[in-house]
Amino acid sequence: VGSPKLGHTQGFVEDELVERIRGTLGGGIDPFGLRDDAGVVEVPGGGSLLVSVDSVVAGVHFDLAWCTPADVGWKALMGALSDLAAMGARPVGAVVALCGPSGDVVLGVMDGVAEASAASGCPVVGGDVSSAAELMVSVTVMGTVGDGDGVPVGRAGAQDGDVLLVTGPCGGSAAGLRTRGGPAFLRPVARLAEGTVARLGGAHAMIDISDGLALDLHRLADASGVGFQLGSVPVAEGATLDEALGGGEDYELLMAVGEADVVALMDEFGAAGLRKPWRIGAVTADAEVRQLGDEELPRLGWQHPLS
Amino acid sequence: VGSPKLGHTQGFVEDELVERIRGTLGGGIDPFGLRDDAGVVEVPGGGSLLVSVDSVVAGVHFDLAWCTPADVGWKALMGALSDLAAMGARPVGAVVALCGPSGDVVLGVMDGVAEASAASGCPVVGGDVSSAAELMVSVTVMGTVGDGDGVPVGRAGAQDGDVLLVTGPCGGSAAGLRTRGGPAFLRPVARLAEGTVARLGGAHAMIDISDGLALDLHRLADASGVGFQLGSVPVAEGATLDEALGGGEDYELLMAVGEADVVALMDEFGAAGLRKPWRIGAVTADAEVRQLGDEELPRLGWQHPLS
Repeated sequence: VGSPKLGHTQGFVEDELVERIRGTLGGGIDPFGLRDDAGVVEVPGGGSLLVSVDSVVAGVHFDLAWCTPADVGWKALMGALSDLAAMGARPVGAVVALCGPSGDVVLGVMDGVAEASAASGCPVVGGDVSSAAELMVSVTVMGTVGDGDGVPVGRAGAQDGDVLLVTGPCGGSAAGLRTRGGPAFLRPVARLAEGTVARLGGAHAMIDISDGLALDLHRLADASGVGFQLGSVPVAEGATLDEALGGGEDYELLMAVGEADVVALMDEFGAAGLRKPWRIGAVTADAEVRQLGDEELPRLGWQHPLS
Repeated sequence: VGSPKLGHTQGFVEDELVERIRGTLGGGIDPFGLRDDAGVVEVPGGGSLLVSVDSVVAGVHFDLAWCTPADVGWKALMGALSDLAAMGARPVGAVVALCGPSGDVVLGVMDGVAEASAASGCPVVGGDVSSAAELMVSVTVMGTVGDGDGVPVGRAGAQDGDVLLVTGPCGGSAAGLRTRGGPAFLRPVARLAEGTVARLGGAHAMIDISDGLALDLHRLADASGVGFQLGSVPVAEGATLDEALGGGEDYELLMAVGEADVVALMDEFGAAGLRKPWRIGAVTADAEVRQLGDEELPRLGWQHPLS
């Protein structure tokens, strides 16, 4: 795709690197979630689990000058859970790998992990502690879409004419990063209940927008072989439109829903006590159409640059 | 336990830190594998999975001056798989979190992960790539002990009079670290087949000796509330007795087996085409007895020091 890529003209950006890794591992597997937010493990004796891993690294994802170790732990677990939410799955367990220089920092991180574990209902079932110069937290989460009858929602199912919905205003986390505070930035919440309601309500495709609404919408469109026409984007209080489109670390869910299902789905959100999603645009059959209003929407968002 | 702890008089060593984290997470759970090598996730619709995570960090576990990125990837996956082997489980999937400064290094690591994946039969089903100043690889593995009828082997089941067996000579990895080479050090192999044979043959307790035979034997004895009397220890070619006892990164399995089951178990190893285990000693009822020959065996081995 020829869209702008945030000026990384040398080295790799994340999506290119992940595509190369898929080649290394071969075949039909999609191990690095380039097409979906979580992988699948078949369980002998019945059932399957969705599995996803997410890492946060000091100096890249956070700086302990403006957040606590507990904030880091909270966000590490919630960030991993957001990938399960995007498949419509509920979590059944997490394991945590902690690498860091100080026992006190490690214990602080685990306080935040424990808080997020309690808030999300996801038990921590294992972990590993290692010394390292920089603090790094890697969280693997496992989840399910039910007792064998559920089907996870992927990225590839969006269809011509689908309505695009997002579960909340965007850019709040980026605005929080700019101002060094705020719950959207320090204590984001994975949209697990929203993801399940969307799955049960027949959403065709879903993705979390943790790398930025624009980039993740492009990824969903790429995976589905479709385009999109956005009308408007809900901007979080205090955020700019650029932050809403490309700031990243928003854990809202973006979904493509058949026009005929939208009203009933909105009602289900209400019945579940959840905020009703925002209607932001529509899916187009022409994959070349990637518009916000009258202009092409660049792939604004966050990808890890690697030299 | 009052045994020596390698001179860490300030800060935390790993086992103390993990014990503190267990307190944070509360209750009866054992999330950091202090008592067992892997945690358990219940799968809705039937079955359960064993889950374990292991990390390797540049400058702590390896140095790219004397191994390749592919060696790092191989060892990261095999190290995680060794924890499943120690429960008598076979792997069903792995996810890999890669944090590093360079795309080429990340791709090299994944080459080694792919080789270890093929060698072990453990598919890589997911992953995450992140930029970071130092290379860090975290691998989560999931495994099973069968279609619902198997019971994993823990650390806590060793009984008075049990025979202690180890699946191979020890210290080869430490000797390789000293001489900067050798397959035991660069390309260790998780003893997955051995672990399954031991489980099916009725082993009472098992642990891998990746942190050193002496330390891991103490851990098994701690978990079981028993002592031990070692007669002899098989030392790998080129290694010293100190390396065999405390060098670490050997992926052999240590098991406690009822005296009545030992001959049949040895035969099962032979029938499976596996090297027969070495008989190194016996379990004692008195938990204060921690002897090699006539001397007390210190807790020689590797624990991560954290300030």
